[in-house]
Amino acid sequence: MASEFGKLLKISVFGESHGRAVGVLLDGLPAGEEIDRAELQRFMDRRRPGKDALSTARREADSPLFLSGITGGRTNGSPLCAMIENTDARSADYTALADAPRPAHADYTAHVKWKGMADMRGGGHLSGRLTAPLCIAGGIAKQILARRGIYTGAHLASVGDAHDAPFPLIPTKEIFDQLAAKAFPAIDEQRGLKMQALIAEAAAEADSVGGVIECAAIGLPAGIGSPLFGGVENRLAAAIFGIPAVKGLEFGAGFKSAGLRGSQNNDPFLVDEEGSIRTGTNNSGGILGGITNGMPLLLRVAIKPTPSIGIPQQTVSLSRLEPETLTITGRHDPCIAHRAVPVVEAVTAAVLLDMILEGEGYGIK
Amino acid sequence: MASEFGKLLKISVFGESHGRAVGVLLDGLPAGEEIDRAELQRFMDRRRPGKDALSTARREADSPLFLSGITGGRTNGSPLCAMIENTDARSADYTALADAPRPAHADYTAHVKWKGMADMRGGGHLSGRLTAPLCIAGGIAKQILARRGIYTGAHLASVGDAHDAPFPLIPTKEIFDQLAAKAFPAIDEQRGLKMQALIAEAAAEADSVGGVIECAAIGLPAGIGSPLFGGVENRLAAAIFGIPAVKGLEFGAGFKSAGLRGSQNNDPFLVDEEGSIRTGTNNSGGILGGITNGMPLLLRVAIKPTPSIGIPQQTVSLSRLEPETLTITGRHDPCIAHRAVPVVEAVTAAVLLDMILEGEGYGIK
Amino acid sequence: MASEFGKLLKISVFGESHGRAVGVLLDGLPAGEEIDRAELQRFMDRRRPGKDALSTARREADSPLFLSGITGGRTNGSPLCAMIENTDARSADYTALADAPRPAHADYTAHVKWKGMADMRGGGHLSGRLTAPLCIAGGIAKQILARRGIYTGAHLASVGDAHDAPFPLIPTKEIFDQLAAKAFPAIDEQRGLKMQALIAEAAAEADSVGGVIECAAIGLPAGIGSPLFGGVENRLAAAIFGIPAVKGLEFGAGFKSAGLRGSQNNDPFLVDEEGSIRTGTNNSGGILGGITNGMPLLLRVAIKPTPSIGIPQQTVSLSRLEPETLTITGRHDPCIAHRAVPVVEAVTAAVLLDMILEGEGYGIK
Amino acid sequence: MASEFGKLLKISVFGESHGRAVGVLLDGLPAGEEIDRAELQRFMDRRRPGKDALSTARREADSPLFLSGITGGRTNGSPLCAMIENTDARSADYTALADAPRPAHADYTAHVKWKGMADMRGGGHLSGRLTAPLCIAGGIAKQILARRGIYTGAHLASVGDAHDAPFPLIPTKEIFDQLAAKAFPAIDEQRGLKMQALIAEAAAEADSVGGVIECAAIGLPAGIGSPLFGGVENRLAAAIFGIPAVKGLEFGAGFKSAGLRGSQNNDPFLVDEEGSIRTGTNNSGGILGGITNGMPLLLRVAIKPTPSIGIPQQTVSLSRLEPETLTITGRHDPCIAHRAVPVVEAVTAAVLLDMILEGEGYGIK
Repeated sequence: MASEFGKLLKISVFGESHGRAVGVLLDGLPAGEEIDRAELQRFMDRRRPGKDALSTARREADSPLFLSGITGGRTNGSPLCAMIENTDARSADYTALADAPRPAHADYTAHVKWKGMADMRGGGHLSGRLTAPLCIAGGIAKQILARRGIYTGAHLASVGDAHDAPFPLIPTKEIFDQLAAKAFPAIDEQRGLKMQALIAEAAAEADSVGGVIECAAIGLPAGIGSPLFGGVENRLAAAIFGIPAVKGLEFGAGFKSAGLRGSQNNDPFLVDEEGSIRTGTNNSGGILGGITNGMPLLLRVAIKPTPSIGIPQQTVSLSRLEPETLTITGRHDPCIAHRAVPVVEAVTAAVLLDMILEGEGYGIK
Repeated sequence: MASEFGKLLKISVFGESHGRAVGVLLDGLPAGEEIDRAELQRFMDRRRPGKDALSTARREADSPLFLSGITGGRTNGSPLCAMIENTDARSADYTALADAPRPAHADYTAHVKWKGMADMRGGGHLSGRLTAPLCIAGGIAKQILARRGIYTGAHLASVGDAHDAPFPLIPTKEIFDQLAAKAFPAIDEQRGLKMQALIAEAAAEADSVGGVIECAAIGLPAGIGSPLFGGVENRLAAAIFGIPAVKGLEFGAGFKSAGLRGSQNNDPFLVDEEGSIRTGTNNSGGILGGITNGMPLLLRVAIKPTPSIGIPQQTVSLSRLEPETLTITGRHDPCIAHRAVPVVEAVTAAVLLDMILEGEGYGIK
Repeated sequence: MASEFGKLLKISVFGESHGRAVGVLLDGLPAGEEIDRAELQRFMDRRRPGKDALSTARREADSPLFLSGITGGRTNGSPLCAMIENTDARSADYTALADAPRPAHADYTAHVKWKGMADMRGGGHLSGRLTAPLCIAGGIAKQILARRGIYTGAHLASVGDAHDAPFPLIPTKEIFDQLAAKAFPAIDEQRGLKMQALIAEAAAEADSVGGVIECAAIGLPAGIGSPLFGGVENRLAAAIFGIPAVKGLEFGAGFKSAGLRGSQNNDPFLVDEEGSIRTGTNNSGGILGGITNGMPLLLRVAIKPTPSIGIPQQTVSLSRLEPETLTITGRHDPCIAHRAVPVVEAVTAAVLLDMILEGEGYGIK
Repeated sequence: MASEFGKLLKISVFGESHGRAVGVLLDGLPAGEEIDRAELQRFMDRRRPGKDALSTARREADSPLFLSGITGGRTNGSPLCAMIENTDARSADYTALADAPRPAHADYTAHVKWKGMADMRGGGHLSGRLTAPLCIAGGIAKQILARRGIYTGAHLASVGDAHDAPFPLIPTKEIFDQLAAKAFPAIDEQRGLKMQALIAEAAAEADSVGGVIECAAIGLPAGIGSPLFGGVENRLAAAIFGIPAVKGLEFGAGFKSAGLRGSQNNDPFLVDEEGSIRTGTNNSGGILGGITNGMPLLLRVAIKPTPSIGIPQQTVSLSRLEPETLTITGRHDPCIAHRAVPVVEAVTAAVLLDMILEGEGYGIK
């Protein structure tokens, strides 16, 4: 009841990092939607570990096996289940951690919640590994949204104190495509190199860094979402905070707007060249009163530094209730923010598709 | 389906700013809980308009009338419905706005969504007025949580570039009580005066300002919440983004953590004087993997500047699709962030109670 | 969390029999739907007590007061809350029952569940009184469905061993209208008199009788509903078993089909005069695999005899755990089945509207 | 969003009859529960096809493969996913049916709903094959309930006009165990033979028969369930109508109670030898006001005759909109009611576990 989000389109993930498989169940996809497997794989590859020097050494093909919901390459209206078998899990790396919870990981809280019964090898069900099935869901959602003229894109907006260029007022599909094709998801190449340097620096010191991800969606019609607790922000927030390591979320000007005057923050309405109503700025992030206004959706997500670091840390022995010094060995990413870029995009796309489907109905006349 | 949140405790708000009444329905409260009406009223009064020079001139008693769910001063297990009649609504102030959507308000998006059928006088169902019934729900939740040793408190962390002192590592009930008793919810008096000065300054210029609210909860046991999409952060986020004008939310170090190293951000575990496991810092905001770790819950909410300002603004005529200059007259707050402080606390308390009840069960043996 | 049903259209009832008010909240109604108050009142009057010699003497106008959701006689898209104040509750009649639970009532189970804190005067929140707000919801749903060419009707199919004539294979709006206009909801006048005689006979002996209600809906397009747990039968069942005294529910041939051969029960497909696909019989009740097939929806509901009877009954003292003989005085209906006819229709209409809205979407292009 | 039921324990089934696999996802199981694989397999075998002359010739081991949620033979608190690969699907048998919907099957309604995109080979996602994963869920639920002293059992109460003996007033675990061990689930051997003879007779005539299943649960504490729409009956009904071919459901005396007097139907309360409150009869089926009263839960389910029969039937060509005579060849059961016995038990157990868990909480102190 906890590993699910969505309303008309329910998305549930399952699996543990070192169990037999991880996977996802999508219940509520429209029927007849073509799923381009090659395109999905390209999307999956954006988060895959082991691509470059900045990531964990775990190498897995992460190729989804479809168990149901697809016939002849198209969705058939019944729940779609896809799984990825875990082939490269090395449990030995983790066994020593059982009694000494790793700081900033969920070891301790999972221990309390499940009274020691959770399979926490490699983070278990709370591992970043679960973002692979999220990307299956998001990759499928992106293809279905694209057919409706809705596109999502994301980049790494900052690492430490290094910042990428922001999205323009109205991002384009081309910008999204370029970002998707890059090994490192930065709009500005030079700034991207600076961010990578910061990650490499942290890695060299057996430390880690966090980052901020900026995600946008274009092509959303005005009028999507509901007031109060059914708003676009609410629904996105409920899902995005489920991505491991997310500690903050803001829309449009976000926290910056708290420091502005109304005369600065209010987006003036205007009529564009095509006779459509839009706003001159986008401090609202495309949402007013929980409802889309036709401008690009814009959100930013704070990703904390990877909890696993090679530097010795202070923790306690759960059995002896005594202080203990822990040094984490084994593979781990010095930064997960750049690999989380497609994950944020995936979850955003999945939530938007759910909301779009609510608006579509299923066409009874 | 949009004006509701919660899982075992469902909270639904209803009403329009200029309709007959606003109210709230709470379904799932435990039976036998005493509701202290005087204490509830004191909580309600913290958000009430018209208290001081910084707020709107609308004066309403905001005294809840209980329609169901209470017998002899105690909850009886059936849904609790409470309403507040609207007695001081002056619709004439708003009629001119129908064709010219106010920037940063939901006028335009509501117009699109409901095809002109929404009652948007005074913001209608999307008005800040709906935070009054939210405070009924939250005030009741606070009383029930207090009986379980759980307390919530909040203050205005910043207005423009003026900042209050932060909460200490482990806030106390005393700090919360002192804040609740203040006319202006700042921990540090001097800094509070500075924030008020900024609000007064904006008011003098017919403008408005935003702010950041910091909210904490103490006494939460470890082990509350579920991984991925059932986490404490997810459930709070889904509700808090329903408070009008909220554009950002972060937990613990939040966006700041994105700029930190792991060695700085990771909270070391230690055993305190009472033999309990806690952490030496609280960058996690009391949540790891979506699950409470026994440290104080800590969150911050960005409130945008009040959209209604007296300065002329650019908008469009919906009927003529032509530019139009709009000058908003009538009462409005130069800042809503300080009045939103108890609202954030209310929603936080309501969500926490829902999650605590899930852990409690209803005691079948 | 228990007094609510629906998915896109959430319907929540509140109130206790002897509290201040009973009411209903509808969240998710489409905007711009006219609500004909006089027509709604006529529908409400069909379940109203005190109309004739066969019903309880409690006389209440049962006129709904709308608190929100309606502007200028039309739905405005925000949650609609309506309440009925309780003006004729006589609590003294019930006080003696507190320690001796009435057989077949919820006194005992409510006592266990809420540990004695429930307000069970007159049945409290579990009273038949709560069907009044259900009729507000259903009356509104009927008006909105009618605009889409969908009509519902119901009659009392049996009382004891007296049976009304069944609905024809394809009932008409005229039949529904005639039934709605009758003081006693029987298709066949003579059989109706026989059923009334049985009720009068039970009343004369201080006893009560049960009955079966048959409800139909016409105009439903094929393709509504989802397989497995999202089917029309599932959604109707989840709501209909919430009507007090319902102990059975069947669709189409229902329990009778269990005694048939496949060659008798299978409805043959045919093409009708208008070129539409329909079936020659309707043993499926208009639903195959949870999905409507375009034939009339047909369901039957078993209503148990009124638990309150004037004959002495065996019960126990909760405090002394000793046998006790209970004689219930005060007003009570010798039969509730005929008054439950519009309630079954109301709940059916509300569920169908919810499902129809899911199919409609909200028209984003 | 349609193939799921449950509240704290969500149960989702996936797969198509002739797809790669069918499976089930259980989210919300308590951690640390042992799963006895051999016992689960014995339960699964009760519904397995091909056991005897009365069933379809399709032979599959139906052995679940666990993908997640179990570590060392115990639940680990994360979602449990189990699947069964389809190894014996013969699609050729069904291809001819695409244009001519089989009467009483979901071919036509699925065609309308999914606009021809559904994979309806063998009934697709609406096939009885999906009851195999339901039995995985139910078999697991039965083991967890047994640890809490709650047991479920079921038998075939009737086939055509042949009736089994009913359950005694208070069924025992022994009766349930005996029934589970039988090849044909009848309490009374002689009556069981009569029912089997009726099935064989229908088979000999290329026809089919329906039946009624009676299911009971013992050991349920009083106080489970909520009034109105959260009652035990509502939650069971919402799930049980998801079992293919179910057309009716009743609790306790059910439809029979509609023909009784209150003085006959009301269950008198008494104090039993152990000093517990129970009722002398069980016409309520263990539920009053939606809440358990401590007596056995008793329900009956009507199963329609198998739609697939060898006798020629009338249908229409969807493409030509012309009458067509259809003769179904290939394997099919002359009766599915006896194989549905463990399925009804499985779904009942799953719903009861969900409701019991709600009462338990997760034990935060």
